[in-house]
This record gives sequence, structure tokens and C-alpha cells, in this order.
Amino acid sequence: MSVLIVGSTALDSIKTPKGENPRLLGGSASHAAVAASFFGPVKLVGVVGQDFPPRYLQLYKRHRINLEGLQILPGKTFHWSGEYEVNMNNRRTLLTELGVFETFTPKLPNSHQNAPFVLLANIAPSLQHHVLDQMERPKFVAADTMDLWLNIALQDLLRLIKRLDAFVLNDSEAHQLTKEDNMFAALKKIHKLGPKYVVIKKGSHGSILSGPRGFFLCPAYPLPKVVDPTGAGDSFVGGMMGYLATAKGSVEENIRRAMIYGSVVASFCCEGFGLTRTTRVTRQQIEQRVKELEKLSRF
Amino acid sequence: MSVLIVGSTALDSIKTPKGENPRLLGGSASHAAVAASFFGPVKLVGVVGQDFPPRYLQLYKRHRINLEGLQILPGKTFHWSGEYEVNMNNRRTLLTELGVFETFTPKLPNSHQNAPFVLLANIAPSLQHHVLDQMERPKFVAADTMDLWLNIALQDLLRLIKRLDAFVLNDSEAHQLTKEDNMFAALKKIHKLGPKYVVIKKGSHGSILSGPRGFFLCPAYPLPKVVDPTGAGDSFVGGMMGYLATAKGSVEENIRRAMIYGSVVASFCCEGFGLTRTTRVTRQQIEQRVKELEKLSRF
Repeated sequence: MSVLIVGSTALDSIKTPKGENPRLLGGSASHAAVAASFFGPVKLVGVVGQDFPPRYLQLYKRHRINLEGLQILPGKTFHWSGEYEVNMNNRRTLLTELGVFETFTPKLPNSHQNAPFVLLANIAPSLQHHVLDQMERPKFVAADTMDLWLNIALQDLLRLIKRLDAFVLNDSEAHQLTKEDNMFAALKKIHKLGPKYVVIKKGSHGSILSGPRGFFLCPAYPLPKVVDPTGAGDSFVGGMMGYLATAKGSVEENIRRAMIYGSVVASFCCEGFGLTRTTRVTRQQIEQRVKELEKLSRF
Repeated sequence: MSVLIVGSTALDSIKTPKGENPRLLGGSASHAAVAASFFGPVKLVGVVGQDFPPRYLQLYKRHRINLEGLQILPGKTFHWSGEYEVNMNNRRTLLTELGVFETFTPKLPNSHQNAPFVLLANIAPSLQHHVLDQMERPKFVAADTMDLWLNIALQDLLRLIKRLDAFVLNDSEAHQLTKEDNMFAALKKIHKLGPKYVVIKKGSHGSILSGPRGFFLCPAYPLPKVVDPTGAGDSFVGGMMGYLATAKGSVEENIRRAMIYGSVVASFCCEGFGLTRTTRVTRQQIEQRVKELEKLSRF
């Protein structure tokens, strides 16, 4: 089955202690869509400006990502620029130029409205709502978010959370939302907001699922060297949804393995700037790391 | 087989957001010895003053801990007082009264010198050396440490690390020792200092083993409420050594499971002040949490 992914499609200029790279392909939807593409068909919904490099359209196409829902509008593509500190955990935004993103209204082509799996990647909650409003009856809806929306659009976000099967957020956002330092206590509070599944991402410490069968402690793949963590969280949730959409059986049966696959795709993402490493990965290399993670977790 | 454990035996006055408790039984050797006692015989080596409450001697004895190596000297027991912040991760030392600990020289009874498993719990590296010097030919030696010794006794510690089978430290100490933010990179560097096994403790994020068979990602047992984390790291390494000493088969075959058992004992430790929760635990409750951790990690 296919996954519909909506989110930001951007140009990222990224500076880390390992180097500097201008105008890479970035954005939550780009990372999530490429990650999901390793498992099955993906429909991308987003917006770019007329300055969007044709090579990036080619990149999407090489990953067989359906671009019917990608609007190309007069104006400039959303441009984000940021810098990471030595420890790769703290990042600082240097510049945000919204460009065509400022007035973006996602419009779903007819062929997209019956997609069974929907990933509302990080984007304003009002736009996430707008996409859901156009869907017929999705089988499984997941959403990611960021601290910005907790700060400036909390009510929209809380209304959105009620409409989700799975809500994915990182540990600092979970703390911000619940005022809980303890992530297991935070998970309990977030469940009360509506979703059946809650996933808290903890970067190199892995992630935690809370669902009807209890917790799952999902490890992160060990990386002795991180080149650029931008998009790792989007890759995680994209890989997870891509796997879920194509695996046989119920979501409940597959979600743990789906997180493992997401975790592995995210590990590749961190090994290069932007999408440069992810786009060179093969399904076989993904399977290899999944097997390694099995070995690394066995006792 | 028995485990010999040397370290601090202290009175801890602990303040956390959940409450305040004066003069609890504490110290690295106390926590480690009680944790190890769930699995087999333990020999404790330490020192206390004449003010040491008899009920704490009874507590050791209830856990069938051999106290032949516990010196009771004229003077005061080592007293530590500390306060935790709301998030339970940062702690502040309010007071340290060394008492009889100031001039402590561990002296091993003859019956202790052939112990096959030795845990050098957190104590000055020079004293850890002194214990090793008195041992005949231990089968497996592990040591823990703390930031203080990295600051004031680094050369002693580096010499000690060469003599170990396993070196256990927490993530901030690993960073301090190697200047690496990435724990997998830090593990590689620490291996070069000598030990076959290196374990990095990451608190609620679990722990990582690096050994001849590669990495093991050991989860922490999920706790929605932490009452007092003091001694959790000592409980972890004590439980690990206690399990290793009694399990059939080689250390290599057992060390992952040993870490899981250590992780479970540490989880109980965090649920009460000082040793109050740990001392009420049964082996059956430990086995129950080990089974739960298996379920929580399976995919």
C-alpha cells in the first residue's frame, strides 16, 4: 500500500564541525519520503519555488516518489540555514526564508485522497489538519511536529493529536508538552490526548513506543561518527511508515519492526550531509543493519 | 563462586524533590554488595566508624554478606550529603565528611585472597590497586570509578585500567576521559587503555557494552517514577558481577544477561531512598522484570 507524505520541501544550508554544505535538498517531507521509498510507493505533497534545482526533482523520481502533489510556484523555495555544535546535539538556526512556503496550502490530487497510510511530517498543524480534511478514510495516520508549533500553535496541535493513530515527537518536545522529565510519565500523559500509539524519539539513545501492548524500547543503530543529524527524525518516521504500509499483517504486529527499520534509515541519514548518504543506500544495506541491530540487542 | 567487593561504606543524607532522608546506608560497596547478594555469596571489604548503626550491620547480614573484611574503627563513618534537582539527573554535593575513610587501607583476610570475581567499586584508584595487589589470581576483575578520580588521580586510574577485565564508567566520565561526545568513539579509545570489556552507563538510557563480540545495547527498565537514583550505578555493576559469578558458562556467554540483571536491580534501587527498596526485593521480582525487559526489547 502507498504512503502519502506531506511536510516541508526545502533547501538546507548546513554547517557542522565536519564541514559546510549550501542548498542541500532538505525538509521534513523530503527526508521522510526518501526514507519511505525503500519499502514501497510514496506520494509527496509539498511546495517548492521556481529556483528548485531540477536535479532534486530527478532525485525524487529516482526514488519513484509520486510528485503529482508537489506544487511548483513562482517565487523562492523555503530555505533553512543552521549550524551544529561540536557535540552534534545542539543546533542553532542561522536563517529561515519561507519563500513560497509562506502561503502554502496543500491541495491533494484526487488520486491521493484514498491513500491508506498518511504521514503528516513536520509542518504547521493547521496544514496537517487541512490535509486530513481532504482524505477519504485513511487506515493509519501518523504525525510528527516540532517545538515551534508547541510555542505558537498549541491549540491546533492538540486538536490534531486527537485525530491521529500515532503521534511522534522528540524527548524535549515531550517535556515541553507535558512538563514531565520522565519520558515514561510523559508517554502516559500524551496518550490521554488521544492517540493509540505515541513514539518519543531520543536521538542516539533510540526511541520509545507506547501502545496497546505496552512499551517498546527501540535502539538506535550505533554510529561512531555522525556527519550531519539533520533529517534523522524525519527519516525515522518516514522509514517507519514506509515499512508499515507494505508489511503484511496488522499495524500492531508490525510497528516494532517498523521502528527498527526507521531507526536504521535514520542511521544512514546521519552519515552524510542532508540526503547525500540516504540516497545511496540499498535495501540490502538496510536489511544488513537490521540484522546487526538484532544481534546488538539480543541477550 | 563468590564476589569480593571493595568500595565505600557510608552514611548518605539525601534530599530529592520527593523528600529528605538522613543517614541512610550508602556507599558504592554497600549498594553493589546488596545487589550482588541476590545471586550468590558476597565478601565485603570496607571501613566504618564506631557510630555505624548496628541495624546496618544486620542489614548486610540478612543479605548473607560476609563481613570479615569490614573494618570497624574508632571514629566516624564516612558521611555524604547531597541534593537532586527536579529532573533527578543533576545532583549537588552538600557535604562530605570522610571520617575513618580518610586513612582507610583495605586489608584482605586470608580467606578473601582467592576470590574468583573481584569488583573494585568506586573508591580511590590507589586503594583499588592495593586490593588487587593482595589477590592471588582472580578470574575476573571489574572496576567502577567517578569523576573525582579522573580529576585528582588520573595516572593511578590509567594504571588501574590496564589491570582490569572490565572497566565500567558513566557517559560523562567517558567524555571526560576521552574528550569524545560520541560514546561509540569513546568506547574504542577506552579499549586501547587495556580492558577486554568496557561498559558505559547512561542512566535511564541504559548502558552499552563493548567487548570481543562487539557492542551490546542494554536497555534500562522503564520507571515512570524515580524516587532516588543514588547508588543505581553501583547496583548495576554489583548485580552484573553477582550474576556473572554464579552463572554457568564463560563470562563472554553471560555478560549481556549479567548487564540485564544489573539493570533490573538498579531499577529497584531508584524506586526508594538509599537501599530501602532494594533490600525488600525478592529474586522472583528480579526475574519478573528481566522477563518484562525481554518483552520490551523484542522485535
